[in-house]
Amino acid sequence: MDVIAHAEDDFIHSEGLVKGSMTLIESERAVTLYRAMGSAVEMSGGSAANTMCGIASFGGRAAYIGKVADDELGAVFAHDLRAVGVTFRPGLPEGEMRTGRCLILVSPDAQRTMNTYLGMSSWLHPGDLDTDTIADAHVTYLEGYLFDRPEAKDAFRVAARTAHDAGRMVSLTLSDSFCVERHRDDFLGLVEDDVDVLFGNADELRALYRVTSFDAAIEQVRRHCHLAAITNGKEGSVIVTREEVIPIPAEPVGRVVDTTGAGDLYAAGFLHGLTSGRSLKQCGRLGSIAAAEVISHVGPRPLVELHRLVDF
Amino acid sequence: MDVIAHAEDDFIHSEGLVKGSMTLIESERAVTLYRAMGSAVEMSGGSAANTMCGIASFGGRAAYIGKVADDELGAVFAHDLRAVGVTFRPGLPEGEMRTGRCLILVSPDAQRTMNTYLGMSSWLHPGDLDTDTIADAHVTYLEGYLFDRPEAKDAFRVAARTAHDAGRMVSLTLSDSFCVERHRDDFLGLVEDDVDVLFGNADELRALYRVTSFDAAIEQVRRHCHLAAITNGKEGSVIVTREEVIPIPAEPVGRVVDTTGAGDLYAAGFLHGLTSGRSLKQCGRLGSIAAAEVISHVGPRPLVELHRLVDF
Repeated sequence: MDVIAHAEDDFIHSEGLVKGSMTLIESERAVTLYRAMGSAVEMSGGSAANTMCGIASFGGRAAYIGKVADDELGAVFAHDLRAVGVTFRPGLPEGEMRTGRCLILVSPDAQRTMNTYLGMSSWLHPGDLDTDTIADAHVTYLEGYLFDRPEAKDAFRVAARTAHDAGRMVSLTLSDSFCVERHRDDFLGLVEDDVDVLFGNADELRALYRVTSFDAAIEQVRRHCHLAAITNGKEGSVIVTREEVIPIPAEPVGRVVDTTGAGDLYAAGFLHGLTSGRSLKQCGRLGSIAAAEVISHVGPRPLVELHRLVDF
Repeated sequence: MDVIAHAEDDFIHSEGLVKGSMTLIESERAVTLYRAMGSAVEMSGGSAANTMCGIASFGGRAAYIGKVADDELGAVFAHDLRAVGVTFRPGLPEGEMRTGRCLILVSPDAQRTMNTYLGMSSWLHPGDLDTDTIADAHVTYLEGYLFDRPEAKDAFRVAARTAHDAGRMVSLTLSDSFCVERHRDDFLGLVEDDVDVLFGNADELRALYRVTSFDAAIEQVRRHCHLAAITNGKEGSVIVTREEVIPIPAEPVGRVVDTTGAGDLYAAGFLHGLTSGRSLKQCGRLGSIAAAEVISHVGPRPLVELHRLVDF
């Protein structure tokens, strides 16, 4: 669940936060930061869950595997997935963890600073996987944020194997450059062995390959990965295959209000295009359209039916 | 807590709801209606709580007495009051009730249809009152929605007596025409014996006096009440004393997005004016300004500091 409040730059500095970043926080820090924050709005969020909602909003079929606690926020999260037509396959709640939440501070310049208490979500393990759902899906999409605890890494590998054994594709989003730096070797192994379609932004890709230039990172991923779609903020995105590098412009946006969910919705558009037989260029444009919609308002999920925005 | 979703007219009809109305619902209906609703956003709400937040947003001092359960939504509600500077004096939670919630369906034409599960909030009783806070306040503001169970009616009367004994004023909002019809005699007694400043809209006032014309209702309230401020939608409001009837125009609004909280915020502006020595006409204008802000966006509480909108 996302807990979203507006915050001035002063508050972000005084709390020792880096504007635009994502920081993992523990339960105690979640309490003190929440206490210091202004009045907030609660909305369902979560990177891969946002992506699945985007796919459903395009008219695609999507399912989500993840863990929430048996608490009110967990019930809200489940409701909001099902209400937009995403099949929710929750793992079993366990222990005393609460439903994960992300305290998001939106600055006047529309940047978001995220403070994530993963809570129950980080306890994903292979036993939580619904392998029938995975074998049924064109693409299984893995969220880098959760690639942290050993059991979750195992779950990623089991999910990838299940998908490949069924002749399906595996996709990964790098999620965050700090995640990538903390687990670089594991991420590199996962990309090399298991990933068919890689998502990430320019920072994350540079962190993965330890290079400073975007072009050098693109060259690396070309040799490493079958297909990658890398976003680069206002510049748009590039789609990278062994044969070509396709630049995709960003869609124009009236006013950028809150950038939360931009990468998640880009992936939604791209994956929906990929699984409905679109060209790579069209996949990229669907990604740009979905990202443009979600940054034009507060909240990480679309407020309109995305299929209505597609005019090609 | 408000649970806000967009809904088409078809959905409102198929659920047997009357657009624009407020319906009290029981816990079971809250579950089935929530299940049928679309993806929602959770925000703190509650009529009198919205009003107190509005007063704080104008720079005034406000406190709130009410009951939430020891659950996550209760904690969010308390946080959001305190975060804007409203002192929260919660009554003790009791029994198995959950924190009250209002399932709000916002139509494409910005009308809101409310379905209120009062939950813990309706269990207010005299023992919950912080009499020091009441005796300290210029005005004690009572919310008609809660004037239902006998214990809550007692709590209203004790609060009114406490305020008057301390030489303070008592104010009431009629809240809803169905509330008024269900408890008309009790409301009339309360207004006659205990209320110095009455708030309501045209429908509620007509229901209170069982008359069909707005003018006839105004004539009644003039004889009955020291001071009344009655809203009338796009027409603005009228302020009624024994000596005069002052019409106040509505403030212009670019686009009306969600009318939830309009009356609550009108009362906030009016009460802030009254307790800071403004003329009645200025009190009305402050009410109009606050109402115009809150209907220009989704959610029942101001998104800007209201004192910044005051240019007189």
